Amino acid sequence: MTNLNKNRVEKWLEENTEHGLPVTGFDIEAGRTAVVITDPQRDFLSPDGVAWGAVGESVVENNTVANMEALMNAGVAAGMPLMISPHYYFPTDHNWKFEGTLEKLMHAIKMFDRTSSLNVDGFEGSGADWMEEFKPAINNKNTVICGAHKVFGPENNDLVLQLRKQRVDKVILAGMSANLCVESHLRELVECGFEVVVVGDATAAAKVPGLDGMVAALTNYRMIASDIWTTTQAVENIKAI
Amino acid sequence: MTNLNKNRVEKWLEENTEHGLPVTGFDIEAGRTAVVITDPQRDFLSPDGVAWGAVGESVVENNTVANMEALMNAGVAAGMPLMISPHYYFPTDHNWKFEGTLEKLMHAIKMFDRTSSLNVDGFEGSGADWMEEFKPAINNKNTVICGAHKVFGPENNDLVLQLRKQRVDKVILAGMSANLCVESHLRELVECGFEVVVVGDATAAAKVPGLDGMVAALTNYRMIASDIWTTTQAVENIKAI
Amino acid sequence: MTNLNKNRVEKWLEENTEHGLPVTGFDIEAGRTAVVITDPQRDFLSPDGVAWGAVGESVVENNTVANMEALMNAGVAAGMPLMISPHYYFPTDHNWKFEGTLEKLMHAIKMFDRTSSLNVDGFEGSGADWMEEFKPAINNKNTVICGAHKVFGPENNDLVLQLRKQRVDKVILAGMSANLCVESHLRELVECGFEVVVVGDATAAAKVPGLDGMVAALTNYRMIASDIWTTTQAVENIKAI
Amino acid sequence: MTNLNKNRVEKWLEENTEHGLPVTGFDIEAGRTAVVITDPQRDFLSPDGVAWGAVGESVVENNTVANMEALMNAGVAAGMPLMISPHYYFPTDHNWKFEGTLEKLMHAIKMFDRTSSLNVDGFEGSGADWMEEFKPAINNKNTVICGAHKVFGPENNDLVLQLRKQRVDKVILAGMSANLCVESHLRELVECGFEVVVVGDATAAAKVPGLDGMVAALTNYRMIASDIWTTTQAVENIKAI
Repeated sequence: MTNLNKNRVEKWLEENTEHGLPVTGFDIEAGRTAVVITDPQRDFLSPDGVAWGAVGESVVENNTVANMEALMNAGVAAGMPLMISPHYYFPTDHNWKFEGTLEKLMHAIKMFDRTSSLNVDGFEGSGADWMEEFKPAINNKNTVICGAHKVFGPENNDLVLQLRKQRVDKVILAGMSANLCVESHLRELVECGFEVVVVGDATAAAKVPGLDGMVAALTNYRMIASDIWTTTQAVENIKAI
Repeated sequence: MTNLNKNRVEKWLEENTEHGLPVTGFDIEAGRTAVVITDPQRDFLSPDGVAWGAVGESVVENNTVANMEALMNAGVAAGMPLMISPHYYFPTDHNWKFEGTLEKLMHAIKMFDRTSSLNVDGFEGSGADWMEEFKPAINNKNTVICGAHKVFGPENNDLVLQLRKQRVDKVILAGMSANLCVESHLRELVECGFEVVVVGDATAAAKVPGLDGMVAALTNYRMIASDIWTTTQAVENIKAI
Repeated sequence: MTNLNKNRVEKWLEENTEHGLPVTGFDIEAGRTAVVITDPQRDFLSPDGVAWGAVGESVVENNTVANMEALMNAGVAAGMPLMISPHYYFPTDHNWKFEGTLEKLMHAIKMFDRTSSLNVDGFEGSGADWMEEFKPAINNKNTVICGAHKVFGPENNDLVLQLRKQRVDKVILAGMSANLCVESHLRELVECGFEVVVVGDATAAAKVPGLDGMVAALTNYRMIASDIWTTTQAVENIKAI
Repeated sequence: MTNLNKNRVEKWLEENTEHGLPVTGFDIEAGRTAVVITDPQRDFLSPDGVAWGAVGESVVENNTVANMEALMNAGVAAGMPLMISPHYYFPTDHNWKFEGTLEKLMHAIKMFDRTSSLNVDGFEGSGADWMEEFKPAINNKNTVICGAHKVFGPENNDLVLQLRKQRVDKVILAGMSANLCVESHLRELVECGFEVVVVGDATAAAKVPGLDGMVAALTNYRMIASDIWTTTQAVENIKAI
């Protein structure tokens, strides 16, 4: 592959090798490893999604949609558990008495809004729905759809329990967005005693003047996770088990 | 009220006052107090529910259904936040690789089973649905339906966050079942720094030979919670705010 | 062994077999199983400890001290991880603005009080210190002393992380007291996806008029845990690995 | 103040105002707000600390030590709760079976190492000890020293409980290091339903070739927290209550 064809994260990984940190590395252990995906939803990943204005450039330059699809499909094909940690807001969530800055923004633009937890009228094709490309993997009968996370991390849903109930110790993590939900999942999973590798180009982040979420995410992944893989590496490693 | 008309918990509370413990007590603080209800669902509370054989006697002798209804309606009428922490199992939960004893039983009898988190066909009137008596309060537009808890406590759903997002510090707790989900909610809420009073006769528990869940629950409520109220007391105290 | 020589929990287990529940059972998996002990401290277990008046009868009738000692020594001898989750209160904890009933009692009797987290003057032989019988096992260089838990469960210390960092999935649980700290540890460990067996006679509980903590604990262990073992069974099973 | 005298974070905040995000803002509510400080310890902040090579440049350019001192002293002077979340490693932590990259590094350089949790011989003046400048505030009798956090966040210590036991809902957060422990505390506190403002120049971060932790931290603080303050702003706001 020539450098011209490489996505932004692949280039960043090639160019940032002088950090001197003792990268732990990550070995897939069959039966103990799962793929975890955050927010594989249209509001982030579709050009008509409400957050596209903030994240679209990063989604394109990382080739995120195709990479997430390839990663999920590889996991399912290998019989590896696939777990989805989605983001939904219900009408009562709009009654919250306080929010951080991005929470406030997400509520203002009605991101991930659903009618109710027990009503799916109008859900299909909405911003809260999965990308079409991902439905074969997500609708697989063994794929676990966790409860909604509500801020950025899995502290308020059942992801950690679902992983442990499958005896999973190791997680291959990706999804949206890189420095918010993916990174909060990384941090919480590490506090809960999982080993985590992040698939850097199967994520993307908001980029606004002065704030490049992808740079923040890659910096913190490098320090916190066991390793950062490209999608190409992840798929190869999954196929090799 | 003559003693003959009293329910089992009311009698227990009258008869068990010699414990010598320094009961903390609980004052409702308007704007800082919520009613939290676990598992107000048919599989526990309806004679055709799958767990009725184990819990029915206790539900009858505590007058649980009418008490839960009165408590929820009082909370809603007073404008107090009402939050429901339900119990649902989805098909992938039946793939768990291990379970404790009651988890194993619940899965075996298909308790709280639903088709999927994004499909509500067949839900209405199923064992996972709310009791009809409770629907006016639960369907109130301000009632928060949390994500499903998956074992017994709220560690794996968003109840704690939803309470904090309403600036709630104090919880009036009831629901099903007394020594499992209610008590696990009590314990986790206390670890998270809430003050909790349990409404003892708005709960009920499994009773099997040699194991009386209601006695276990009342013993532990007395030691852990700020206080135990009867439904009559709870409704009076809520009306008085 | 004749029935006359059996301790209270051994008798209870023999007499309570008609519950009809599908007890899960628990197999020790070498390298994946740890012994976890809560509050092996003098204030609970020594006749001069501040809580002896409430728990002493139960400690004697369960033969708790000798059983805890035998269990810990068996674990250490087998090279199984041993983790201690202690209970300490520091002076600033006495400034808490609210407490549940037993928390209030523990603070009133100065249970588990220490001068500060960074000062151990006067600690040795105090109510917060380990029982002498337990010091060989606890002072073993591989025994993990977790941070203090602060209410009853491990939600506020590092026990879960320490277990996961040793790749432990299964816990043999005992200690003090049966229906408070042991049971809260059981419940939280189960929510975090561990399999747990409780060693029923390596615990004991408060017994006050109308409230028998041991009955509550055994009832809930039976329903929540994978199994209840006697110390005799636990030691045999550990030796057999 | 001329721009020449401004520290790096003050300049960054002045220069990065075009992000277009709806910054929430943060009001100190007397009696409901605390100052929380992570890792105010010599290994990070003293030129002879083991991590100075990685973080020293950032500590100097943010004027971190003087700012942390001013922030803690302002909190204590105002009677605001001050809580310290320290980082300690004990010998058994060196037996962990896996670590992320920075965890591995911290263990390799013996950062925050202590002899045992119940032995403070040699602690004073070690890398795990507080900076001398901070001791008046930290040794104040009302300052809460939490249990050690073990990775980066407060998931494994008692910080959240200690805050709630003081009825604190809002946190003014600072300490070391910006993108690791401070940011993990920010994220966990937000998931637990606190409002958080970060004092950006009372933190500092590792800077190694290709990875600037301070840029990552400020990017994520801006998106996640309610606001970012300078120490000057924080001290003024605290004095004004």
